[in-house]
Amino acid sequence: MATIKDIADKLGVSVSTVSKGLNGAKDISAQLRQQVLETAVELGYTGRKTAKKNLKKLCIFIENMDYESASQFGYDIVLGFRQAAYKEQWEVFVQPISHEFQVNEKYDTYMLGNGFSGSLMLGLSLEDPWMEQIKTTTFPTVLLDNFIEKNPNVGCIGTDSDEGIALAIEHLISLGHEKIAFLDGSRGSMVSDQRMIAYLDNMSKHRLPVDPNLAVYGYFVADAAHYHVPTFLDLGATAILCGNDLIASGVIEECKRQGFKIPEDISIIGFDDLPIAQRLDPPLTTIRQDRVELGKCGYYILFAMMAHVSLSKNLLRPSFVVRSSTAIAKPRIAKRHCNEKDSVNKINTQLYNQFLQHRQI
Amino acid sequence: MATIKDIADKLGVSVSTVSKGLNGAKDISAQLRQQVLETAVELGYTGRKTAKKNLKKLCIFIENMDYESASQFGYDIVLGFRQAAYKEQWEVFVQPISHEFQVNEKYDTYMLGNGFSGSLMLGLSLEDPWMEQIKTTTFPTVLLDNFIEKNPNVGCIGTDSDEGIALAIEHLISLGHEKIAFLDGSRGSMVSDQRMIAYLDNMSKHRLPVDPNLAVYGYFVADAAHYHVPTFLDLGATAILCGNDLIASGVIEECKRQGFKIPEDISIIGFDDLPIAQRLDPPLTTIRQDRVELGKCGYYILFAMMAHVSLSKNLLRPSFVVRSSTAIAKPRIAKRHCNEKDSVNKINTQLYNQFLQHRQI
Repeated sequence: MATIKDIADKLGVSVSTVSKGLNGAKDISAQLRQQVLETAVELGYTGRKTAKKNLKKLCIFIENMDYESASQFGYDIVLGFRQAAYKEQWEVFVQPISHEFQVNEKYDTYMLGNGFSGSLMLGLSLEDPWMEQIKTTTFPTVLLDNFIEKNPNVGCIGTDSDEGIALAIEHLISLGHEKIAFLDGSRGSMVSDQRMIAYLDNMSKHRLPVDPNLAVYGYFVADAAHYHVPTFLDLGATAILCGNDLIASGVIEECKRQGFKIPEDISIIGFDDLPIAQRLDPPLTTIRQDRVELGKCGYYILFAMMAHVSLSKNLLRPSFVVRSSTAIAKPRIAKRHCNEKDSVNKINTQLYNQFLQHRQI
Repeated sequence: MATIKDIADKLGVSVSTVSKGLNGAKDISAQLRQQVLETAVELGYTGRKTAKKNLKKLCIFIENMDYESASQFGYDIVLGFRQAAYKEQWEVFVQPISHEFQVNEKYDTYMLGNGFSGSLMLGLSLEDPWMEQIKTTTFPTVLLDNFIEKNPNVGCIGTDSDEGIALAIEHLISLGHEKIAFLDGSRGSMVSDQRMIAYLDNMSKHRLPVDPNLAVYGYFVADAAHYHVPTFLDLGATAILCGNDLIASGVIEECKRQGFKIPEDISIIGFDDLPIAQRLDPPLTTIRQDRVELGKCGYYILFAMMAHVSLSKNLLRPSFVVRSSTAIAKPRIAKRHCNEKDSVNKINTQLYNQFLQHRQI
């Protein structure tokens, strides 16, 4: 690993100037400080020794996720991370990272310049400018719901979708449901894809028929229901599993608009257990991602990575919360049968066949 | 959670008798102590409060894995676990668990009776008597290379087979190999199945043809080579990837016996990087599972679980070690073409088709 002297030699300045730059002393120019930081990053100096002696600072970076009030998705994640980190005397900072922020700051330079030993990244997508830099970062970094290949400094955390969907489908089967529709989030999101595969896999595991018109991608918003629920109802679905609680709130509204009573006529299940879930009418049965625990998990995985344990994918177990939106199945006669054109956005037939085959092996 | 008083009430004895039983005092009978422990487990008393105050003890249970000398697979795992745990003042005990031991002792009772706060399990298979008890254990437990559904107290660790196989196949492709055979370990082992899927998936990802006669399950022993290598050679494979280093050692011997030079005529890659890998002739290029890191990972995941973070699956990143058993591909004319009967134990055609389709989605 590079030393302060290497940085000084490369820049042709004194060791004390480099030290001032790294420690943010006031008596060197902002421009020289930036040069010191960028050279340090270029040479692979990560300042971890400094961090151990003087500072214990971690950062949570957040983009595209609300976290400031208790009803928002990110709030409890930040809380859980802080709770676990404070126990071991870490200071935790929270930094929103807009697209512009990411374009103006380099990730490793920012980490070094601020004396952070590691970070948790919330809400990033593969299109975010920093994602490219995270592929080669030398700082221990944990990503929620995203995955980076081969960089031993980057770990991924998320909730085990397969176990969550398994719990939901077992619950519905115990209530006599067989025709179970799935309205997922956006196609191409890592989480949506995992949940779709989990749905197909678990339906097949229980030898329930999967109708491609009943397994569709929408978007992670309530409005998606309007486009897909009428088809589900026409085709005789007795239960609708949703990619998250927001989608479920839209599904409840749409079912009511169509004259269906919940749960008497149709059962509905969400995913996440956001605060909104228990305030819906009826209160929503849902797969719970414990967000406080997810935040703690972020800290513990980061803690291991700061001790040079290269964790890659790490999953948290979900739990299942039964409220009032599910009940014994009331079989209905389908108004019409499957039609290839029914679903504007149905799952890929190959993916579907693949999972039908899966359980026969 | 049950208290000492609950146990005393249930047994009709005094609180101090229960306390003596839990703490292993000499002045109560062995029979009464066993009754106290079993009742405590039955009521869900886990003694964690006691553990926090007076004792910090963890246990590594080992079955069917050698660990006593530095050349054996389990040695470094135990070492890594101890290194990470000692830093935080845990005492670590190692307990071999034969089939007989498991039949005579109940897992939770043993944990409670010995004051252990959590454990790492090495080498167990789904057939082990304790596996059934681990499904419902209330003690934080980490399993290597096995998975238990739905119990929030049980976490799983392993090495990311997909990333390991990806590194190996990319290395072979960079050397011009296309006809890459895979001799896996035993069918039905979780690790073998993950490696087979990773092989199929990565071959498809690079659009390399997968011949079912070149992708076979053997056993995790050197002798497996004798049955499969002649077919691989006849069919024109220029490289053989192996399910572990022991298999690779057999493959090297068999290739030599058939008059092939390594790496000039054929490239060979192992998995694990056991101490044997660098002593083979030629020294083996292999996918490295860092076993010290795996042991540390076991501790850190257990540490999170003892803080009530319910981790499920956790993967460690492998690395890739290039030695002398791989070189630029030397294309050969296949002596004969595929024949369905060539392979006595070829992969399931459905699994194979499934993964060919996978990348087209």
